[in-house]
Amino acid sequence: MQHRIALLGFGTVGQGLCEIFRDKRDELATQYGFEPIVVAVSDLRMGTVVSDSGLDVNRLLDLAAAGTSLEEYPGDVRRGGDALSTLANCNADSMCELTFTDVKTGEPATSHVRAALQAGMNVVTSNKGPAALFYRELEQLAREKGVRFGIEGTVMSGTPVLNLARLNLAGNRITAARGILNGTTNYMLSEMEAGKSYDEALATAQKLGYAEADPTADVDGLDALAKVTILANVLMGENLRPSDIPCEGIRGITPEDIEAARADGKRYKLLGEVRREGSKVTARVAPMQVELNHPLAGVMGATNAVTFSCDLLGDVTVNGPGAGRTETGYSLLVDLLEIHREMLSRGEALA
Amino acid sequence: MQHRIALLGFGTVGQGLCEIFRDKRDELATQYGFEPIVVAVSDLRMGTVVSDSGLDVNRLLDLAAAGTSLEEYPGDVRRGGDALSTLANCNADSMCELTFTDVKTGEPATSHVRAALQAGMNVVTSNKGPAALFYRELEQLAREKGVRFGIEGTVMSGTPVLNLARLNLAGNRITAARGILNGTTNYMLSEMEAGKSYDEALATAQKLGYAEADPTADVDGLDALAKVTILANVLMGENLRPSDIPCEGIRGITPEDIEAARADGKRYKLLGEVRREGSKVTARVAPMQVELNHPLAGVMGATNAVTFSCDLLGDVTVNGPGAGRTETGYSLLVDLLEIHREMLSRGEALA
Repeated sequence: MQHRIALLGFGTVGQGLCEIFRDKRDELATQYGFEPIVVAVSDLRMGTVVSDSGLDVNRLLDLAAAGTSLEEYPGDVRRGGDALSTLANCNADSMCELTFTDVKTGEPATSHVRAALQAGMNVVTSNKGPAALFYRELEQLAREKGVRFGIEGTVMSGTPVLNLARLNLAGNRITAARGILNGTTNYMLSEMEAGKSYDEALATAQKLGYAEADPTADVDGLDALAKVTILANVLMGENLRPSDIPCEGIRGITPEDIEAARADGKRYKLLGEVRREGSKVTARVAPMQVELNHPLAGVMGATNAVTFSCDLLGDVTVNGPGAGRTETGYSLLVDLLEIHREMLSRGEALA
Repeated sequence: MQHRIALLGFGTVGQGLCEIFRDKRDELATQYGFEPIVVAVSDLRMGTVVSDSGLDVNRLLDLAAAGTSLEEYPGDVRRGGDALSTLANCNADSMCELTFTDVKTGEPATSHVRAALQAGMNVVTSNKGPAALFYRELEQLAREKGVRFGIEGTVMSGTPVLNLARLNLAGNRITAARGILNGTTNYMLSEMEAGKSYDEALATAQKLGYAEADPTADVDGLDALAKVTILANVLMGENLRPSDIPCEGIRGITPEDIEAARADGKRYKLLGEVRREGSKVTARVAPMQVELNHPLAGVMGATNAVTFSCDLLGDVTVNGPGAGRTETGYSLLVDLLEIHREMLSRGEALA
């Protein structure tokens, strides 16, 4: 069955997703009955192209690779317009919100998400802004409209976290989740443990493309903070904002701190934590010492991990990639596949 | 919505599941619209009781705790008969197969599973026998009958493994899965690393109830072998039998081996592994040396873990409990909840 998709934003993640559509076309159709048709792409820098009968993803990827405007796409398609007008003028079943992340205002992504849900489209996104700031409202809106707001990719890229909690841990009361939610700082702490200074570790992380030129979002814990907010709201039904949650990054950690922890059989990790005690939920981001035999202690380099504490099942830890072109592109696919499975299941019941 | 359940076998796992039904009744109804009604219980030792309108789980648990026959259940219910006649004479939507595990013949569990599927019931089970020996056939039968064969609990109790691969890693080609699939031997190897001899480690494991009086199934790798067979057949579409797969246990591992590995920056783990190379799938169970920085190396004690290698997402590792009354009882619940979600989704589409 065809699944019509609109992409808002066509940077690394959008292109990563389209590469998967290109490379896995037959497999997705055969195994999941999933035939993605990209009916619209709108990118602030690259322009807008819309076709109700579908665009050729090879052509879109070629234009992006060549740095050419998407509006050079040949033939009988509609061109131009902004993200919101694109949504209003396309026939997508699902919209992928892939514009830039702003965790202060959540814009323009949140307006895109709202408009798509209002129009009865499912939304999948790896953009932390809308999810960290407006999860309750957007989830509620999706529910009212009978569609889905899929945000697996906002925490640890495609590594199963939010869907895992919802589906695979269903029936448990999750009493705590603690995790290594930022790969850059985990890489830096690993390097510092291996003898580098903070500045050297940061320089290496920047050289490898893990850290931005301005590393604030990573080293001050703001990226982890957005993810902890999402965990609190999704796993524990809270309605917290990032500004409600205490947050400390790794700038204050010295080689001496790391050595003292090691002498004590422990290891520093920048952890994000949400914890339910009775009816009270607390959350924080801070460097914490972890016992070496804890599953989070062995998570080194840019890998991410989270430990769920569950009333029935006890502790379950998942670890995997936290970023990456294909890994984050995949996070959208896995949400789309689940939405598609539900569409097929409803369709079969009606047939 | 009510979900009518028949339990074949009412030992630790069946009672663990009923305790969850008892303790989470309101939560399951409110959050998942899941109202489990136990309509039949048949246990070789404790007898059989059937009621189309449902049995009181408190009463069933009390009878089991008192060591009394289930047929002492009071009032207007049907009593007596074996497992197959129970299936033929009850109105269950789903059957939980919880009789004893025999990985040589798969019986009597496989006959129970076949009969239930033939009768149009979903089947959920933590019994490794049918899944290790007859997965393809039973899965095919379930598909023909439009029902589900849920076996999450056969590998690592309720820790997400098989559903994780199917749902949360959907769209990936899984090229390998390697894991610590037996808690007893992992506990023993951890103890040996801490200085115990093989015999001392085994004695402690037996004292703690991890190992049976006859520890063969654990220490010779047969338990892990059944699980590897299931992984090969479920994740990689094979149709292997345990007897097709090379299997070596931990009896041959000496303190000297463990020390030599440690000196080399490695650690012995009894691993089960399935690996796809081109069109060829290989599987094995053997003690292997794992680099200390691998996520499986840090998994100590009775914990289980598995690393999936995926073409899109890279390596994802999940670790959690591999056994236990509540943990395995929960494995059935999570499969039932997914089946129930599909029933609700079809029902809503038809409404």
